[in-house]
Amino acid sequence: MGIVETILVHEIAGTAFLTLLGCGVVANVLLNKTNGNGSDGIVIFFGWGLAVFCGVYVAYDTGAHLNPAVTLGLLIGPAKEYAEGIPINLVTTVTYLVAEFIGGFLGAVVCYLAYKKQYDDTEDSALKLATFSTAPTIRSYAWNLISEIIGTFVLIFVIIMFGHTPSGLGPLAVALLVVSIGASLGGPTGYAINPARDLGPRIAHAVLPIQNKGPNDWRYAWVPVVGPVIGSAMAALFAYAY
Amino acid sequence: MGIVETILVHEIAGTAFLTLLGCGVVANVLLNKTNGNGSDGIVIFFGWGLAVFCGVYVAYDTGAHLNPAVTLGLLIGPAKEYAEGIPINLVTTVTYLVAEFIGGFLGAVVCYLAYKKQYDDTEDSALKLATFSTAPTIRSYAWNLISEIIGTFVLIFVIIMFGHTPSGLGPLAVALLVVSIGASLGGPTGYAINPARDLGPRIAHAVLPIQNKGPNDWRYAWVPVVGPVIGSAMAALFAYAY
Amino acid sequence: MGIVETILVHEIAGTAFLTLLGCGVVANVLLNKTNGNGSDGIVIFFGWGLAVFCGVYVAYDTGAHLNPAVTLGLLIGPAKEYAEGIPINLVTTVTYLVAEFIGGFLGAVVCYLAYKKQYDDTEDSALKLATFSTAPTIRSYAWNLISEIIGTFVLIFVIIMFGHTPSGLGPLAVALLVVSIGASLGGPTGYAINPARDLGPRIAHAVLPIQNKGPNDWRYAWVPVVGPVIGSAMAALFAYAY
Amino acid sequence: MGIVETILVHEIAGTAFLTLLGCGVVANVLLNKTNGNGSDGIVIFFGWGLAVFCGVYVAYDTGAHLNPAVTLGLLIGPAKEYAEGIPINLVTTVTYLVAEFIGGFLGAVVCYLAYKKQYDDTEDSALKLATFSTAPTIRSYAWNLISEIIGTFVLIFVIIMFGHTPSGLGPLAVALLVVSIGASLGGPTGYAINPARDLGPRIAHAVLPIQNKGPNDWRYAWVPVVGPVIGSAMAALFAYAY
Repeated sequence: MGIVETILVHEIAGTAFLTLLGCGVVANVLLNKTNGNGSDGIVIFFGWGLAVFCGVYVAYDTGAHLNPAVTLGLLIGPAKEYAEGIPINLVTTVTYLVAEFIGGFLGAVVCYLAYKKQYDDTEDSALKLATFSTAPTIRSYAWNLISEIIGTFVLIFVIIMFGHTPSGLGPLAVALLVVSIGASLGGPTGYAINPARDLGPRIAHAVLPIQNKGPNDWRYAWVPVVGPVIGSAMAALFAYAY
Repeated sequence: MGIVETILVHEIAGTAFLTLLGCGVVANVLLNKTNGNGSDGIVIFFGWGLAVFCGVYVAYDTGAHLNPAVTLGLLIGPAKEYAEGIPINLVTTVTYLVAEFIGGFLGAVVCYLAYKKQYDDTEDSALKLATFSTAPTIRSYAWNLISEIIGTFVLIFVIIMFGHTPSGLGPLAVALLVVSIGASLGGPTGYAINPARDLGPRIAHAVLPIQNKGPNDWRYAWVPVVGPVIGSAMAALFAYAY
Repeated sequence: MGIVETILVHEIAGTAFLTLLGCGVVANVLLNKTNGNGSDGIVIFFGWGLAVFCGVYVAYDTGAHLNPAVTLGLLIGPAKEYAEGIPINLVTTVTYLVAEFIGGFLGAVVCYLAYKKQYDDTEDSALKLATFSTAPTIRSYAWNLISEIIGTFVLIFVIIMFGHTPSGLGPLAVALLVVSIGASLGGPTGYAINPARDLGPRIAHAVLPIQNKGPNDWRYAWVPVVGPVIGSAMAALFAYAY
Repeated sequence: MGIVETILVHEIAGTAFLTLLGCGVVANVLLNKTNGNGSDGIVIFFGWGLAVFCGVYVAYDTGAHLNPAVTLGLLIGPAKEYAEGIPINLVTTVTYLVAEFIGGFLGAVVCYLAYKKQYDDTEDSALKLATFSTAPTIRSYAWNLISEIIGTFVLIFVIIMFGHTPSGLGPLAVALLVVSIGASLGGPTGYAINPARDLGPRIAHAVLPIQNKGPNDWRYAWVPVVGPVIGSAMAALFAYAY
């Protein structure tokens, strides 16, 4: 495979695994008639962290960005390449971004198939949307944006720090970082911290034939895109000065 | 020991540890008068993940399949041998499969002994069966099958990816993968993702002299066998193209 | 320090840390007016697992037995020495056992000091005893003994397996094993699986001037001693054949 | 950068990440209208542990003290330098301490920004203070001090032990140690075990324009400073004899 095909295949697959398992844990906790219905928040936090864990293994060969904020952070920051043997240029950048959004969409579609009967059985359309995309607990675009900026800043800056610090944890380190951000900074907006993880599934919610589905909340959709972009850029710039 | 005896001993023991600890955590949460009664779902998810953790150490010398879906994935996929020094052929394949089902049966029997008084004290026969085998929360054979296919696809494909990715986690990686699948994809069917883990204990439920036991739900028993077989084959074939 | 002094200091300290943190998590969950009051079972399971994690680091130089069942398993099983440079003989064996019980006693005393005001504020004397020692949820000496035998068998056999399997987890492996046993096999008896962890604190409960304390339940005290001894011996003998 | 600037930048940043994520998890659980509201204690314990995990990566180059008790323990104990290439002397000591308190203050300010709307929406001023600083569940300065001494003793002594014990866990080891202390010894006082983590945010609480805020509880503020200092000194001295 050429570099473009390699990026496409691995980042689509990795982001799809990430989103399948991430949306899946929310579906397990929120939808009716699941084994995980009503579980404690810790299940969501570890569920999303381990979703990243699995996605990173799947996309290991292309550096496992899985997130436009990661791609952007590497583009802006001091990194020399996107992954071993993958240069930073316009073509690779666009390929990563396209692959991440496609993966986010596909993962949500497979999650819907896994929980089809539970989606049918759940009446609350807001809960159904919540299994796809994030929403603020108190709507205030400015403050919601700040929450997403802070969460993504932590994500990207600590990932950059991982590169400077030896340990045998491999993909577990980033998984635990995501558990941490979820538990600590996920309170106000549900910690998208990843435009592909939010917009890809939101489009899936819009196009899938879900019974009794509600609106897609497009008015909020820009926050989990713009917030992570700003947070990631800030982290990358801060890394130069650090 | 010859290869057949080595496989038999290690895979029976490993699968028995897996099933003892896996059925055990469900018994602790579901049965009356246990210390873990009514614990949160996170206990089940980590309990099953760590059951795999222990089982993998016990069967490390034979590659710790512990699951016919793993054996099948290795048979179909690009692997060259079942474990270091164990060739892939008809005899070893059958030995793995037989050992896994025997181990699943034995683990459930020992679990019953550990929780004997709690089984006696619990009246709900569906709860008792649930400590042995999985059941869907909404019965729909087609959709239940899809859930098991998706869960097993994730299990087998990520395990194949582990082989390509360096880390010092050892058996912890597969344990965390199982925590992830439980939290994210276990909602509709209780994530058998392993025919030996479901059918072995179901046979144990059928033959053990459990007080006030209910039916064995044989009509569902094919789903957690066929689903994992399909999901595993799909993951192995996908791994060729990846 | 000579070998006897080294064993004494490290195993007393390690077992004291183990028991302080282990009894501590139970006190945090069970006693009145704590931050952890009423927390989910997962807190107990991880709390005890991480108590072992810390204890192992403290007693690393002497092999971190921390448990007469571990000492016994090494005495009976195929191990050649108790730890690097510490031979298996009558003097070292007795030293380990004495140190473990002293450490168990001391850890419970320090735990009492940490939670002094909460002990004073809690009226239920059975809860107070439960922070020191284990008790069965359904009293049946034969079946309680079987539960402790099974739990200790899993502990000792998997620890022996750790020695054969490379990984970078270090003391985390045994911590996760203890989380697993707690979640999966701790339901009927509260998983003493360690005579020093149960008898040492029970003696502390007997001698400490705890307000409104109840009986020490000496009639049960032999179960968490004899069960682990039998389970450990069985695991060590099974390891020869494995 | 010179050594003083290096310490300042890294310890301010690391302690700020620690405090942002640590105060953040308490805000997520305690404040109104968060996704984590009312979550189980396990979320707090893992949230604080992983806050340390992230902080350690951020301040890795300066040894990641993040805590005056760690600096003091290294000053008194057998360590030869504060981190590779950073000598132990008056200037570096003061720099560490100043940086830690500044970082603690800044982290709490950023946490406030992340949860601004939730702080506005929460009426109970004691809950708001609890997201910044610790408070005892039963006020008794002597016994509260003892709890903080014991918790910090465990923290510092086990960290010293980490230095003697090989494992591939890196910063995860100290994270798990903090999870352990939280679960096991956090019951009476909320385990400050770090003067900068308590006093820095308390000052932030005093100066930030929080709606309907209550008193800063200055009368308790000395306990989470003096307790950790005593516990750390005791651990460092014990390490000489060990």
